[in-house]
Amino acid sequence: MEQGNLTTWRAVRYTGGGNEQMEEIDDPIAAELALTVKLDGDELATIVCSPSHLRELVFGFLASEGIIRVPGQVEKLTIDEERGYAYLKLAGLPSISRDKMAKRWIGSCCGKSRQFYFHNDMLTARTIMTRYTIRAEQCIKLMELLQASSIDFHRSGGVHNAALADGDKLLSVMTDIGRHNALDKLYGYCMLQGVKPEGKAIVFSGRLSSEVVLKAAKMGCGVLLSKSAPTDLALRLADDLGITCAGFIRMGGMTVYTHPERIIMNQSLP
Amino acid sequence: MEQGNLTTWRAVRYTGGGNEQMEEIDDPIAAELALTVKLDGDELATIVCSPSHLRELVFGFLASEGIIRVPGQVEKLTIDEERGYAYLKLAGLPSISRDKMAKRWIGSCCGKSRQFYFHNDMLTARTIMTRYTIRAEQCIKLMELLQASSIDFHRSGGVHNAALADGDKLLSVMTDIGRHNALDKLYGYCMLQGVKPEGKAIVFSGRLSSEVVLKAAKMGCGVLLSKSAPTDLALRLADDLGITCAGFIRMGGMTVYTHPERIIMNQSLP
Repeated sequence: MEQGNLTTWRAVRYTGGGNEQMEEIDDPIAAELALTVKLDGDELATIVCSPSHLRELVFGFLASEGIIRVPGQVEKLTIDEERGYAYLKLAGLPSISRDKMAKRWIGSCCGKSRQFYFHNDMLTARTIMTRYTIRAEQCIKLMELLQASSIDFHRSGGVHNAALADGDKLLSVMTDIGRHNALDKLYGYCMLQGVKPEGKAIVFSGRLSSEVVLKAAKMGCGVLLSKSAPTDLALRLADDLGITCAGFIRMGGMTVYTHPERIIMNQSLP
Repeated sequence: MEQGNLTTWRAVRYTGGGNEQMEEIDDPIAAELALTVKLDGDELATIVCSPSHLRELVFGFLASEGIIRVPGQVEKLTIDEERGYAYLKLAGLPSISRDKMAKRWIGSCCGKSRQFYFHNDMLTARTIMTRYTIRAEQCIKLMELLQASSIDFHRSGGVHNAALADGDKLLSVMTDIGRHNALDKLYGYCMLQGVKPEGKAIVFSGRLSSEVVLKAAKMGCGVLLSKSAPTDLALRLADDLGITCAGFIRMGGMTVYTHPERIIMNQSLP
């Protein structure tokens, strides 16, 4: 991960117990950037994010929102990281109408919501029909790979990671203080590199909320592997949309919540 | 915490290693609700949240956004949890203009952003001048109390907690799948109960982002205690706004990032 996602802060470390003490330290801290996306001069959204892969982030965000479907719809994207602006020019009209974009507001870890389920989601989220399967053992291994790759998380405790897994390896690891941004960066990476998420798995450090499941559906990815917990709304959506959700992948185990038919054990049950 | 924040889901638990096996279990899952707030018939925002303390959530949200300053500005609030709507009627005009609300969009854990720093935040966030101090030992103890009270987090792994601490005890513990919602519920609780956050500490399970610090500033609370990590933007804001930020409160220690003058050790340094 880029150096830019981390910075340091002079802090006081307190240790309690019998030998109570305080000492000054230089602590690694996750950097936070507010990036305002301007479309033809108008503010489209402000994304609170980690300052890495900003190009992928904007492309993934536009695709997630249904504003573009292919990278060619972006005529020009200029990012001024210093001032926190992304200037965007589309080649034609956006794929959804401007008034439907009007209510969007992106915090450091938010995505969409009910209203979007009824509008754009119906256009962009699709039921996943892939016959792709993955071995249970492989899921555990991929999560270990993700954690090994996310040194910054251990150093600053402040970021999430999302990666696309092809077989036994991770194609790309995206990092952000926002769960949704990490996924948008991955989506943008797939678009820009021409990588198809079908027949691959998303390996994710964050909680599986409804918004995360919808994002996987929009990407066309049928297997969502998470270190964390899901919500009930996420699982109802995943069940409907044909997405395999596995959570709590840690310490050699995991819980498969939806569509377990894609998870294969090494030895068959007796 | 209310039962309503938790539900169960039939899942498959996989255990790897030499004795690979799968078994069906009923797993406790965090419930997720999309609550659309309607102001005089218009959609104001959709808040993706845990379905508890919805009244406190709406009041805290309105106050955070600068839409109301005192509870009396709400003439009527009717919550239809089943259908996911909160119908709101104000007694007079909102405290900020409608067009400034237009861009708000609330995901399960998002808050505001740069645009808000320049508009409403300047009106509602205030520099904290309190002389309130807290013993370092007390910070550790309060975090232990928070964790002991949040049984659901351990059961479902999907929620955050925010509490207001008065001396050695927690006045109220609010729970939500969204970090910001947990804080808004706490804000709403303070408004509705007439509890003043000055001279008290916020004890929080989530990460300290810029949005969390701004929320504390709006509430008028000068001490923010977190189990997790901060971001750099959060710390710059806290430094400016006079807020003491302590993070990584765990295993008997903590890191104090800003305004350490409010944190007192039992024995003075040699």
